[in-house]
Amino acid sequence: MRNLNQHNITQAVIDSFAGTPDPRLLQIMTSLVRHLHAFARDVQLTEQEWTQGIDFLTRCGHITDDKRQEFILLSDVLGLSMLTVAMNNDKPQGCTEATVFGPFHVDGAPRHELGDDIANGAKGTPCVVRGSVRGLDGSPVPGALLDVWQSDDDGLYDVQHQGLDHAQSRGILQADDDGRFHFRSIVAVPYPIPHDGPVGRMLDATGRHPWRPAHLHFMIQAPGYETLITHVFRDDSDYLDSDAVFGVRQSLVCAWTPQPDGTYLLEYDFVLNPAHSE
Amino acid sequence: MRNLNQHNITQAVIDSFAGTPDPRLLQIMTSLVRHLHAFARDVQLTEQEWTQGIDFLTRCGHITDDKRQEFILLSDVLGLSMLTVAMNNDKPQGCTEATVFGPFHVDGAPRHELGDDIANGAKGTPCVVRGSVRGLDGSPVPGALLDVWQSDDDGLYDVQHQGLDHAQSRGILQADDDGRFHFRSIVAVPYPIPHDGPVGRMLDATGRHPWRPAHLHFMIQAPGYETLITHVFRDDSDYLDSDAVFGVRQSLVCAWTPQPDGTYLLEYDFVLNPAHSE
Repeated sequence: MRNLNQHNITQAVIDSFAGTPDPRLLQIMTSLVRHLHAFARDVQLTEQEWTQGIDFLTRCGHITDDKRQEFILLSDVLGLSMLTVAMNNDKPQGCTEATVFGPFHVDGAPRHELGDDIANGAKGTPCVVRGSVRGLDGSPVPGALLDVWQSDDDGLYDVQHQGLDHAQSRGILQADDDGRFHFRSIVAVPYPIPHDGPVGRMLDATGRHPWRPAHLHFMIQAPGYETLITHVFRDDSDYLDSDAVFGVRQSLVCAWTPQPDGTYLLEYDFVLNPAHSE
Repeated sequence: MRNLNQHNITQAVIDSFAGTPDPRLLQIMTSLVRHLHAFARDVQLTEQEWTQGIDFLTRCGHITDDKRQEFILLSDVLGLSMLTVAMNNDKPQGCTEATVFGPFHVDGAPRHELGDDIANGAKGTPCVVRGSVRGLDGSPVPGALLDVWQSDDDGLYDVQHQGLDHAQSRGILQADDDGRFHFRSIVAVPYPIPHDGPVGRMLDATGRHPWRPAHLHFMIQAPGYETLITHVFRDDSDYLDSDAVFGVRQSLVCAWTPQPDGTYLLEYDFVLNPAHSE
């Protein structure tokens, strides 16, 4: 590799990784170089555009902290997050489909009893959520743990509210012996992903909006089953056809039904995939 | 895009950019999505690997500041920088070839007179550098500006020395009316790129070293000619065949000749490409 040019450099870079001890890492680096160079060649990337790319990544890095993750947002709006989720969660017909995790989950959310109001003061129209967790064969999954989180009527998650010192519209519940669960929360509304940073400017420059359709996040865990990370979307929401992060799957869209007293009811049954099944 | 899966998501993301007003940006985003998704599919990226990728980029962002640019290092060691340089500087036969700019250039380096010692106290074996700047037709380029920079005997550029408050082995000179230049500096030695960050850990994990062969940087500008950004490499240096940033071109390798008094002489003639030529 003593006389590198635009025609031989890709192979030279790939060869430089030949001594990688971990075969999986070797595979990833080889493919990354091949596709990265193919992109640069395809568009005949200029030096000025390369500089703009370096600046863009630098700005993403500098806005990222323990509460803001611009690289996840970038992956989300480029569809890489959903592609990765979809490839790794190709479940058998009948199982509840997975969608993106998103950046607003918090480990160690408060535990709640069935029937509790997890809104905990969050602004929004009251909503009862109930349903069941079952296996692919229809058998209940007793004691399944449901980790639930959502934004409030302002389109903000609790962690986005400056100074709020307790969880809102977020909690962990345990299904009963029949795999059934119910709790109270608020009606989800559409909200924009954080768009005051470089990813937001990229969306602006490409004529895209930052909005996500109304949804409620679930992570459901039970021994003997694959963990399910998903949303339930509201069927009358805006942006179902243009989710900024490409997370909508038709099977996850359902009615949130208005009740005579002005509250809402959401009913959804989850079907888990047995662990290690093919 | 209401029922996204691993098979239809790439087209959905590409379609989302359809309203991009700038056709060049549209082309770049479309190609980027296509190649990024092709990479993820090719390696069947796992969710854990995706998380590691996000963490890697985050660490690159957090170590980057006004003196350290980890994203440029990343681009360098993946060969993207050199590929971009090579694609954009495909000069006619006979012109001096370009190579990577690197992260250690400083705008506004001190002006020097021909014959000055630009080392300015930098540690190293004294070396006289002389040569000429000509056009492709052999005619001299009178008054060409040469911006020169290099590392010292410790393998460090002046900007890498904590507390050093003046330029060393760095300066701008003007060729004479015959396009000739000469100055004094020190002999370049091989040095490792900064490898105490995430890019260094990636090199470690892939069995690669961080070293660059000995070289002297030049940026040469003159009215009517394309700016030339290049290095001159030392022909007896280690790492000419394994430059960590893939910058070596055989035409840029030349002898740095020992002199009877223990100093060195480097002679190199640069040939500039007329501006806007094809």
